[in-house]
Amino acid sequence: MSQGSFSSLGYYSAPFRRFGASTLVRLVVLAVGLMAMAALTVPDVRASLGAVLDICLWGCLAYFAAEAAVRLGRAKRNAAALRYLFSPSGIVDLLGVFPVPVALLCGVAPETAWLCASLWVLKLAQNSPGFAQLGRVFVLEAKPLASVLVLFLIVLFLASAAMHVVERGEQPLLFGTLPSSLWWAVVTLTTTGYGDEVPHTALGRLLGAGVMICGIATFGLWTGVLATGFAAERRRRNFIETWDVVSKVPFFQSLDPSAITEITHMLRRVEVPERTAVIRRGRVGDCMYFIAAGEVEVDVPPNPVRLGEGAFFGELALLGDMIRTANVSTIKASTLLVLDLADFRTLMAHHTELARAIDAEAKRRLGDIQRRRELHLHGDTAPV
Amino acid sequence: MSQGSFSSLGYYSAPFRRFGASTLVRLVVLAVGLMAMAALTVPDVRASLGAVLDICLWGCLAYFAAEAAVRLGRAKRNAAALRYLFSPSGIVDLLGVFPVPVALLCGVAPETAWLCASLWVLKLAQNSPGFAQLGRVFVLEAKPLASVLVLFLIVLFLASAAMHVVERGEQPLLFGTLPSSLWWAVVTLTTTGYGDEVPHTALGRLLGAGVMICGIATFGLWTGVLATGFAAERRRRNFIETWDVVSKVPFFQSLDPSAITEITHMLRRVEVPERTAVIRRGRVGDCMYFIAAGEVEVDVPPNPVRLGEGAFFGELALLGDMIRTANVSTIKASTLLVLDLADFRTLMAHHTELARAIDAEAKRRLGDIQRRRELHLHGDTAPV
Amino acid sequence: MSQGSFSSLGYYSAPFRRFGASTLVRLVVLAVGLMAMAALTVPDVRASLGAVLDICLWGCLAYFAAEAAVRLGRAKRNAAALRYLFSPSGIVDLLGVFPVPVALLCGVAPETAWLCASLWVLKLAQNSPGFAQLGRVFVLEAKPLASVLVLFLIVLFLASAAMHVVERGEQPLLFGTLPSSLWWAVVTLTTTGYGDEVPHTALGRLLGAGVMICGIATFGLWTGVLATGFAAERRRRNFIETWDVVSKVPFFQSLDPSAITEITHMLRRVEVPERTAVIRRGRVGDCMYFIAAGEVEVDVPPNPVRLGEGAFFGELALLGDMIRTANVSTIKASTLLVLDLADFRTLMAHHTELARAIDAEAKRRLGDIQRRRELHLHGDTAPV
Amino acid sequence: MSQGSFSSLGYYSAPFRRFGASTLVRLVVLAVGLMAMAALTVPDVRASLGAVLDICLWGCLAYFAAEAAVRLGRAKRNAAALRYLFSPSGIVDLLGVFPVPVALLCGVAPETAWLCASLWVLKLAQNSPGFAQLGRVFVLEAKPLASVLVLFLIVLFLASAAMHVVERGEQPLLFGTLPSSLWWAVVTLTTTGYGDEVPHTALGRLLGAGVMICGIATFGLWTGVLATGFAAERRRRNFIETWDVVSKVPFFQSLDPSAITEITHMLRRVEVPERTAVIRRGRVGDCMYFIAAGEVEVDVPPNPVRLGEGAFFGELALLGDMIRTANVSTIKASTLLVLDLADFRTLMAHHTELARAIDAEAKRRLGDIQRRRELHLHGDTAPV
Repeated sequence: MSQGSFSSLGYYSAPFRRFGASTLVRLVVLAVGLMAMAALTVPDVRASLGAVLDICLWGCLAYFAAEAAVRLGRAKRNAAALRYLFSPSGIVDLLGVFPVPVALLCGVAPETAWLCASLWVLKLAQNSPGFAQLGRVFVLEAKPLASVLVLFLIVLFLASAAMHVVERGEQPLLFGTLPSSLWWAVVTLTTTGYGDEVPHTALGRLLGAGVMICGIATFGLWTGVLATGFAAERRRRNFIETWDVVSKVPFFQSLDPSAITEITHMLRRVEVPERTAVIRRGRVGDCMYFIAAGEVEVDVPPNPVRLGEGAFFGELALLGDMIRTANVSTIKASTLLVLDLADFRTLMAHHTELARAIDAEAKRRLGDIQRRRELHLHGDTAPV
Repeated sequence: MSQGSFSSLGYYSAPFRRFGASTLVRLVVLAVGLMAMAALTVPDVRASLGAVLDICLWGCLAYFAAEAAVRLGRAKRNAAALRYLFSPSGIVDLLGVFPVPVALLCGVAPETAWLCASLWVLKLAQNSPGFAQLGRVFVLEAKPLASVLVLFLIVLFLASAAMHVVERGEQPLLFGTLPSSLWWAVVTLTTTGYGDEVPHTALGRLLGAGVMICGIATFGLWTGVLATGFAAERRRRNFIETWDVVSKVPFFQSLDPSAITEITHMLRRVEVPERTAVIRRGRVGDCMYFIAAGEVEVDVPPNPVRLGEGAFFGELALLGDMIRTANVSTIKASTLLVLDLADFRTLMAHHTELARAIDAEAKRRLGDIQRRRELHLHGDTAPV
Repeated sequence: MSQGSFSSLGYYSAPFRRFGASTLVRLVVLAVGLMAMAALTVPDVRASLGAVLDICLWGCLAYFAAEAAVRLGRAKRNAAALRYLFSPSGIVDLLGVFPVPVALLCGVAPETAWLCASLWVLKLAQNSPGFAQLGRVFVLEAKPLASVLVLFLIVLFLASAAMHVVERGEQPLLFGTLPSSLWWAVVTLTTTGYGDEVPHTALGRLLGAGVMICGIATFGLWTGVLATGFAAERRRRNFIETWDVVSKVPFFQSLDPSAITEITHMLRRVEVPERTAVIRRGRVGDCMYFIAAGEVEVDVPPNPVRLGEGAFFGELALLGDMIRTANVSTIKASTLLVLDLADFRTLMAHHTELARAIDAEAKRRLGDIQRRRELHLHGDTAPV
Repeated sequence: MSQGSFSSLGYYSAPFRRFGASTLVRLVVLAVGLMAMAALTVPDVRASLGAVLDICLWGCLAYFAAEAAVRLGRAKRNAAALRYLFSPSGIVDLLGVFPVPVALLCGVAPETAWLCASLWVLKLAQNSPGFAQLGRVFVLEAKPLASVLVLFLIVLFLASAAMHVVERGEQPLLFGTLPSSLWWAVVTLTTTGYGDEVPHTALGRLLGAGVMICGIATFGLWTGVLATGFAAERRRRNFIETWDVVSKVPFFQSLDPSAITEITHMLRRVEVPERTAVIRRGRVGDCMYFIAAGEVEVDVPPNPVRLGEGAFFGELALLGDMIRTANVSTIKASTLLVLDLADFRTLMAHHTELARAIDAEAKRRLGDIQRRRELHLHGDTAPV
């Protein structure tokens, strides 16, 4: 079974290839820019490599300026251009271009002015499709998260006031003022524990132990809220992503609405780049695929068969002994819908018409494979 | 799709505006008071700004005293006043008013007496609607949480006794007594790690490694318990909040009880302040809305349409191509019930009468929109 | 709504009262014993309070010995006695009694011998009903937890070997040997971070950053596994606990098996001690109760009504306007089954016969309350 | 109830015994090898025990080389051998054998060359069945995890640039360059907190507090994503593992497909080694068992009864008073399917034919037990 998993890992790595050359270039430019900026703050490196670093930084700035200009140029009307400029993406682009030159013009020392280039890191968020999803979790769970934060603040203030009273006699320098006790409380409550301020008295240590345990409790609550919110958001997002595609597959359109809703919850949408193996012969298989867009090639002798939009494959292993009978790979970039074994079984049991359709097609294919093999063995057709 | 999410983020920020002026003033007073109290403990600041800080602190105290007096005054009968005084809210109000003056009267130094003002931070809990919810999680999961705490105590005691034996020869000052070994164990088991006490012997380090791993295991268990409890509590709370409102929407009252229960689990209640955009034309839409209270305006040419209690909107995008066809914004503060796409589909599939009602209304609206547009184009009516 | 929650918090605190006097005495003896043992290791305290501490410790030892003797005595036959001795509880009892005297007899110094008394902390596990539940989570999730541990070990060894190579030139004392690099790796991977060993080279810091991020990833995985396991275990345990009781309530026995199973999943069993308020008049109510064992008193004028096993109460608020109409408190220790509003609605919708039975009883009670009030007003009966 | 849990713990420990001698030897060799490698880097130990350590290390290397040779030899054809070499398992085997000799041949000092033996720790992953499962969680949740990482990087860069500006005047050595500020940010954001770099200014501490809280938020999000992904993966994996076995039990084959799918979700597959107690008489029982493979012995007087593939046992306690009536232990290594009480009830309620079959068998057995007891008492048959 683990072999099957490794093979599917291989195919799941495909999305990384989908980044495409332009994104890769962008990430490299970003990495070079951030490293050059960091290097510029080290006096030794600045002395020896100053010119190289300057070229890198100005080059990156030019690249990002060009990128922003292209995006702005794409907006044909003024209204669209304005809307882009005030969108999160537009603001990130502007923050990447203007702060450094402005700071330099204002006479700020170059090594300080270039620190504004750390805003370039925000460009990573533009490539992150799951960002809005995380944001939604925070928004939907705003109330309980705020409560956890309030709990955090209450413990913080009360603990630091108490610690200030308890330890100021013993360590007037470290706990003599409330702000510095607050610093201790933050460092302790987040379980960071620098160790720059540590209680020495017995009472202070008891209090400190309490604060640490409160820190863990608060943190656990926080994680629990986020985990719950994320689970709900994930289910919702998956449905929306899949629904979009399911409604375009002719095979599902004959089903009644209740069945479509049910199947949409079960399917998982994956994007596979061109010329990528989806199924390998001989491996253990635990899912089947529907083609929402694109085209795949099933490698059956003597001639491979092509399947297009609306077709399905991989069902033979689920109906039989779980072993894949043929290689399948994409011909062009495709959108596939994955149906896991557990959900396949549930679906087949609940929707007889669907079960019959898949069964009939599977039988036809098995017959076809056998006939082809016989033909192939008898040498009637030359294999390619 | 992410654009649609950003737009909905914009509208979700609305609850923050709902705080209202009085709450904002209260939070500002609280922040000023706490900062003044912290500043008072710093000798330099006290010397230079003492008078200003005193004014701030006495001002905040007066504000909180007035607040408590108003609340007490609202209770018309003595019984109600007593009940308020012994309620959590009343206790917090009393703790905010009396400790400081009492301490000052007892002759405590002002900078120490004002430390009692750190109790003001408890007032944050009064503005936190999700607090009771978090409390319930702790109560419902009391048994397993207690078990985790017991596990924590067992590891704590056994590890510190062992560490005391192992390290007292090497570091008599740090591990020479059990209380100081216990301090090391707490600091390590919570993964705080101040570094003030660190084992030096090989055996001590092996033991320390074990304690750290136990710490992570305990913590993971703790978080797991809280996450499970919170998920259950969240589902329960959502139903209660929504049920309250669903039973007042006439549209749902025609449904049979089973359908009402089902839909109540699916809806999410949101409060939207007046003059807030709920839907923006051209964005991707993935939910529809029912109006439980309040009124919204749909911006269709030539004249905007108003929808009141019991009406619904946003269903056109779900039935069609997911693009919003009109701007919708609230006229007065409204309570809306949000139905996500996934649940909308499930509902439409299971309850044909509901599907038919929504479909009919959607068709009527589409026809209406088209007719209005034609009228508008032919210039029969002047647009506003 | 939050008021209602606070009131139910009040009643949920009841289980703590259920501890009973014997358990409380036991916990006090345990706390005194552990504190005396800790104090004995501090030379100053030992010098001044030695005699008192000795009395405390020997007293606690005597108490635990007596406890073990009583438990052993309760086992009438030899087989039962042996089974007790080899049960977890018996082993804990033995570990509490013998190690200290044995160590003292072997000539170990008293302050060291008494350290064995730290084993007393294991007695906390005997009072912890949720312990077996936590244990089961670890057992059921053994495979993935072992995998996480293996991941942890792999990162640990590879990181410390690499760090040893990178830093041994710069800091031969701290990273010069692999064991001491391993210590750094454990401290870092668990995010404890004592700070006694810190990489100084750029490469070492890059490696260190990688280890910290791996630490967080491993930890997150660990927590995720435990959270998943705990959620499953909780659902299972709740069913078993409730099933036991549901099958004894006559009201449910008329239902068909499928309904009983459904309702068992919805109910939550709570134990309420005698003379405890369960419902307070005027509060918001969001659940109803079935009495599995015990008796409660409903405080309706002029004479309170008593309800016994198999009866239910609290349904009026759920059917009406959510406000409790009367005080209810237990007369003797009772086992109640709580049904939340959401589940109540689902149940009423799915099981019409149950809905009818509850409705009929509710109407009878409302009529009864009204009639009683009228009688009461007309002064026909003297109120108690 | 807790007693019942302890007994089942006893039986769940069985999987550990299933490791078998060969795996145990392998783990011991691995532990010896890693410890010898660590010891070799300590100059004192190397001086006194050098020869012993060398023997250990070469011995372990020989063992792993032999193991790899055996595995390679098993692959009969060249293609299979190549496939093994490029499989994860093959690569781990090669990494365990070649690096050390190659390094020694290249003239690297022995204590450094042997550090490559830390790669042996990867062999633990070969024994870890749940590894692929954890990998899949990371793959399936790649998008949100990448988003969390991006969030982490954004906070990291912005915080370290800001801290560099704020603290470089105060602590030029520690925060004077951006790379060293980045080190501080990583140490703080992961809540490791070495304490080697700590902000001293008020503004720096405020910033530091913000970074710590961001660290906890990021971490919570990360854990939430992993927990959600793991829960989904676990359900899927459990179905696949169980389905494999359920389809081989004749008892289930008479059920309709929908029932089989339902029961597959409920069952949990456990492997029990030979001669292991599964059920102990007198304990509380909360589950029943189906035998998918192997054989068990039910210890009923006068003669034990053997049950083989397809049989079930343990249902009497669930139908009656929850007390086990007989000891049951495996005769040979068996695969059992466990059905918990909650699921048993649900199943019995939904599938009457299954309920009838189990009921009939239970009644037959009860009668049988009684008849046997009577025979036994009347002395007609000599007990074994």
